[in-house]
Amino acid sequence: MSRFSLSFHLDPQHNAPLYRQIYQRVKTAIMEGKLETGSRVPSVRTLASELGVARATVENAYGLLTAEGFLQSRGQAGTVVSASLGPIPASLSAADRNPVPKPINPMLPSLSSLPFQLGLPALDAFPRAIWSRIVARQIRHTSINDLGHPPLTGVAALRSAIARYLQLSRGFTCQPEQIFICAGYAAVLDLLIGSLFKPGEGVWLEDPGYPVTQAFFRAAGAVLMPVNVDEEGMNVSQAVVEFPQARFAVVTPAHQSPTGVTLSLSRRMALLEWATRQQSWIIEDDYDSEFRYHGQPLPSLKSLDTQGRVIYAGTFSKTMFPALRCGYVVVPESLVEKVEAYCPLRSCATPPLLQTSITEFLEQGHFYRHTKRMRQLYAERRGFLAQALTAAFSAEVLQVTEQIGGIQLCVRLGQHLDDADIARRARENGLAVQAVSDWQIHRREAADPLRPNGLLMGFPNIVSAQQAQALVERLAVVISAASAGPPA
Amino acid sequence: MSRFSLSFHLDPQHNAPLYRQIYQRVKTAIMEGKLETGSRVPSVRTLASELGVARATVENAYGLLTAEGFLQSRGQAGTVVSASLGPIPASLSAADRNPVPKPINPMLPSLSSLPFQLGLPALDAFPRAIWSRIVARQIRHTSINDLGHPPLTGVAALRSAIARYLQLSRGFTCQPEQIFICAGYAAVLDLLIGSLFKPGEGVWLEDPGYPVTQAFFRAAGAVLMPVNVDEEGMNVSQAVVEFPQARFAVVTPAHQSPTGVTLSLSRRMALLEWATRQQSWIIEDDYDSEFRYHGQPLPSLKSLDTQGRVIYAGTFSKTMFPALRCGYVVVPESLVEKVEAYCPLRSCATPPLLQTSITEFLEQGHFYRHTKRMRQLYAERRGFLAQALTAAFSAEVLQVTEQIGGIQLCVRLGQHLDDADIARRARENGLAVQAVSDWQIHRREAADPLRPNGLLMGFPNIVSAQQAQALVERLAVVISAASAGPPA
Repeated sequence: MSRFSLSFHLDPQHNAPLYRQIYQRVKTAIMEGKLETGSRVPSVRTLASELGVARATVENAYGLLTAEGFLQSRGQAGTVVSASLGPIPASLSAADRNPVPKPINPMLPSLSSLPFQLGLPALDAFPRAIWSRIVARQIRHTSINDLGHPPLTGVAALRSAIARYLQLSRGFTCQPEQIFICAGYAAVLDLLIGSLFKPGEGVWLEDPGYPVTQAFFRAAGAVLMPVNVDEEGMNVSQAVVEFPQARFAVVTPAHQSPTGVTLSLSRRMALLEWATRQQSWIIEDDYDSEFRYHGQPLPSLKSLDTQGRVIYAGTFSKTMFPALRCGYVVVPESLVEKVEAYCPLRSCATPPLLQTSITEFLEQGHFYRHTKRMRQLYAERRGFLAQALTAAFSAEVLQVTEQIGGIQLCVRLGQHLDDADIARRARENGLAVQAVSDWQIHRREAADPLRPNGLLMGFPNIVSAQQAQALVERLAVVISAASAGPPA
Repeated sequence: MSRFSLSFHLDPQHNAPLYRQIYQRVKTAIMEGKLETGSRVPSVRTLASELGVARATVENAYGLLTAEGFLQSRGQAGTVVSASLGPIPASLSAADRNPVPKPINPMLPSLSSLPFQLGLPALDAFPRAIWSRIVARQIRHTSINDLGHPPLTGVAALRSAIARYLQLSRGFTCQPEQIFICAGYAAVLDLLIGSLFKPGEGVWLEDPGYPVTQAFFRAAGAVLMPVNVDEEGMNVSQAVVEFPQARFAVVTPAHQSPTGVTLSLSRRMALLEWATRQQSWIIEDDYDSEFRYHGQPLPSLKSLDTQGRVIYAGTFSKTMFPALRCGYVVVPESLVEKVEAYCPLRSCATPPLLQTSITEFLEQGHFYRHTKRMRQLYAERRGFLAQALTAAFSAEVLQVTEQIGGIQLCVRLGQHLDDADIARRARENGLAVQAVSDWQIHRREAADPLRPNGLLMGFPNIVSAQQAQALVERLAVVISAASAGPPA
């Protein structure tokens, strides 16, 4: 341990940010065997004071090292070097080949859990002890029959439990056979595209919209049809005129991703009407409707779907946690056979152990209790961030937009600022802020009044007003550097 | 319970086999609420004697119901109706729409664990208690950082552990960065095809060969190039002449799937030479090399690969169990970047909880001990089946071929018999036998001397000579019916 602290010094003039230097030093020490497996690393507080840096800087470095598997948190017992790492020749480590962080592709869920990371629920608030007990009980009850090939479409009990949940919470009825369990939303898209889509067909996509959806349809050879988003959500009438022939429309009706607006009822009806007329399919990506903190969650688009045109996608990544790797899709009865026929090539990858554990979590009522608690918590944590931002910035620089739910904050930037440049600078400083314009399909000129210019920030893991203030201060430094100097 | 037994009667004249009738009755009783959640169903012995059928018939029915999630085995406490099933309207159950079992597509891992099921290791012999303890400990030690987005390419500790395992057991060295964790072999193929393959490119495939591989390349728009298999494995020199331009060659060098032959050293060298010359890629599907029960496992093809042309695929489905949903692929260093770039669209779906548990299972030596025990056990269990077959059939009807390893038996049928017809009849009688000719790409006429005519049978779950004998008797009834009557 002493050897580690002694050989450690940081270079403020180095072109990598401080947290990255710490990350690199610790990682090298581990790989060279200087930090032995199982040994404790200094606490965040200790190392921060030793190095004369902010605790957040060390936290970022440790977070990254943990996410990459080099360190392991043992709770009260501190943080240790992971038990099962062997020496890795430094010349071949991927991170060593790229010591300066590359700009993060916005479609990538980042490996690390840096502040503002999008798509992360409040990890500290997840009932780990309850979950632990459920999984431990399931594993104890594993029988020989549970070890064989699992059902390609998902475990029957989970499909039934989800059907009941959707009826109670999302206002529509479906049969368990219409539900396919998938390892997350990406796997849902992959299953749908593989079974229902042909290269060259068109798809309406919200613009700006979720980059993962864009990436999947692009890779599938789709004709991407960007549809503007305004205060009522996707502009359906524009799309009907411009692109009447699309095979799919993908929407996030509850809280548009990323702007957070709700698709209006008249737009919902127009969308359903178009799909029925064209015999096209609507994919409702209902990724975070559970978290509406003003009033009740809206009924789903699927609940209005009398003609069987809506494919409904849900995920446990936001309501439980991302490492679970589990989501699901509900397809209309007319599509069950087609999707089932494709399942041998894309069988459900979520291990039955976790599927039955999620079933228990739902059936025992923990899921309802947890999402209910989170609605309240997220309203509070969003408040921490929104207040800190409003206090720190004038409206000409940064403006917090209204928001009724969701787990990310979307702020508008003044037109003299470039969101993509700021997001890149922020990432270089260890803040996982994203630019709205990076979520656009149809890139617009700076002068275009329709050009969105804003930042996206995840807030569920901001646990106090103090923390929000400290993070916003770091962001303010980035923004003032961006407005002062030429783009880095 | 009494209501259930009372209302129960079987119809031997019914066109569905007896086990299927039992399956259907129990399932209907559950769906109609006549059998309540959590209630015990009669033991196999009791129900078999009540209905006057063989115990194996009831076992088949219960196995299918368990696989589909309707029943749950509680070990000593008996078998119960799954805790979380709600009433499912009978009119919409997929199984009800198809009361007579459809012929099983050979590429489908069947939902059920019928006798002779291929691809299943000995489920009774897996150290469940040890595994249970490891997973329970991992889940107890879950920290907040373990809940976020997992690494797209797999958990670092598991990649390191696999690298060490491969060096010790498969004779080649690789860096953890070359290893990508995937949810099984299908996910490996999907990742490789998505990142390295373009529609219209050609691929050498063993003929007969594993149908899953064929299905993936067919779906990817590949030109399938079938290469004959003889007693030295894939006929490489034929392929070099016929199809010099292929982009990929997929081989199962340890024990060719399905014939079980080992790819000879001269063929291995010829294959490597071709790939180096053409700058093509060899995919070594090393699905069961751990189970060579005469002598040591052969070194892998990858261990001869001085030019970096071999992509090595391994799986834990056979060495541990299929419900784990975990495999991996080792790519040459020159391909790491390309495959990594595709990972956002096909990120590792195995939850980190199970990845770290597998790591422990490897690092604590359980994996080595288990596969070593299995080598011995499989030699014994293969013996049960081989002896029962040899005793029951004359060589003109059925002949057991030599085999040095693997977890399936390949038998040759007399040319007056049609393997596909027999396999279909066997499946209708609850035996998961497959026909070698169903594994062929290039279907051949009955008169063609190159036409393989044989059956494939999984043996790891045949636990005694008595059981083998009873199963072979059932198969004998099927075969004699097939040779007597016209194809059903």
